[in-house]
Amino acid sequence: MIAEFSIVPVGEGLSLGRFVAECLRIVEGSGLKHQLTPMGTILEGDGEKVMATIMACHSRVLQMGERVVTSIKIDDRRDRPADMDRKVRSVEERLRK
Amino acid sequence: MIAEFSIVPVGEGLSLGRFVAECLRIVEGSGLKHQLTPMGTILEGDGEKVMATIMACHSRVLQMGERVVTSIKIDDRRDRPADMDRKVRSVEERLRK
Amino acid sequence: MIAEFSIVPVGEGLSLGRFVAECLRIVEGSGLKHQLTPMGTILEGDGEKVMATIMACHSRVLQMGERVVTSIKIDDRRDRPADMDRKVRSVEERLRK
Amino acid sequence: MIAEFSIVPVGEGLSLGRFVAECLRIVEGSGLKHQLTPMGTILEGDGEKVMATIMACHSRVLQMGERVVTSIKIDDRRDRPADMDRKVRSVEERLRK
Repeated sequence: MIAEFSIVPVGEGLSLGRFVAECLRIVEGSGLKHQLTPMGTILEGDGEKVMATIMACHSRVLQMGERVVTSIKIDDRRDRPADMDRKVRSVEERLRK
Repeated sequence: MIAEFSIVPVGEGLSLGRFVAECLRIVEGSGLKHQLTPMGTILEGDGEKVMATIMACHSRVLQMGERVVTSIKIDDRRDRPADMDRKVRSVEERLRK
Repeated sequence: MIAEFSIVPVGEGLSLGRFVAECLRIVEGSGLKHQLTPMGTILEGDGEKVMATIMACHSRVLQMGERVVTSIKIDDRRDRPADMDRKVRSVEERLRK
Repeated sequence: MIAEFSIVPVGEGLSLGRFVAECLRIVEGSGLKHQLTPMGTILEGDGEKVMATIMACHSRVLQMGERVVTSIKIDDRRDRPADMDRKVRSVEERLRK
């Protein structure tokens, strides 16, 4: 499973960097393959572990404040293993043609 | 927790109604308070139960096809219980003023 | 086109009702068919008008604060007109069978 | 404005790479700063140009098929210019501390 998530704490000031950093520490602790982007964090791996990691981040940010809006997008397929690098590479190869 | 989710099976034809109906059966079986909208399904209740229900729908639709894109948005707060009816009512009351 | 949107002002306190109400006034002024849900606002109509209305709401909420995170999901099809009521009705009819 | 978008054509087969490549061509033609990720495409620049580019991609993919589900997430702020590199850098700096 590949999943991207982002967490917006509501009512906690304009700068969200410390919340993202806190989540990244949880993500790094999970051992899952991951990528930080300007708009979210992308995880790749076992579906249950991916979702548990996202919900651990959600709970942590909620504890740091009072209210949280979390967005998750999952891309899951049965025909072959998830591979976040291949998704980008396959588009880049098409563009070069 | 209040959460909205929608599941798009990839490569399964233009009509998605049968997938949504399958999810609604799972949602109704969960006993969670819920609302079907034209763009997704909204659940209210215990966070773990809400997420387990969404992931059960995700797995079911994935079994019906090969690839699935699932979007989840969570609104979670600690200062008072989630209440999806109150959210709508509070806006409607403001509009009437 | 059918589109759902939600706008989270960042750093503006826990209660978001006044921002949603402000958007609803813009939406009502647009004349577009719409539905307020506990997680967003759904619009139906001409694609350009729908997007212009969403972006007018985005700009208004941004003016009321400093930073805004806006989510938009569009369901667009060419084979028949968008119909948000039919989407819900078609699922409900399947469930009754 | 920074915005991430992804477009899922409904009923068009399992592989979506050709649709993403088509969008990337439009994005490159726009001259906007952009980043392709495993889950979407991120644009940075003038708000109207960003939205026009996303909607051009949406229309193009819709023309290639019959139905499309497009997700857009916007991060917009008035206190300083959008900077997608800074967002990632600021988190990475916190993590190193």
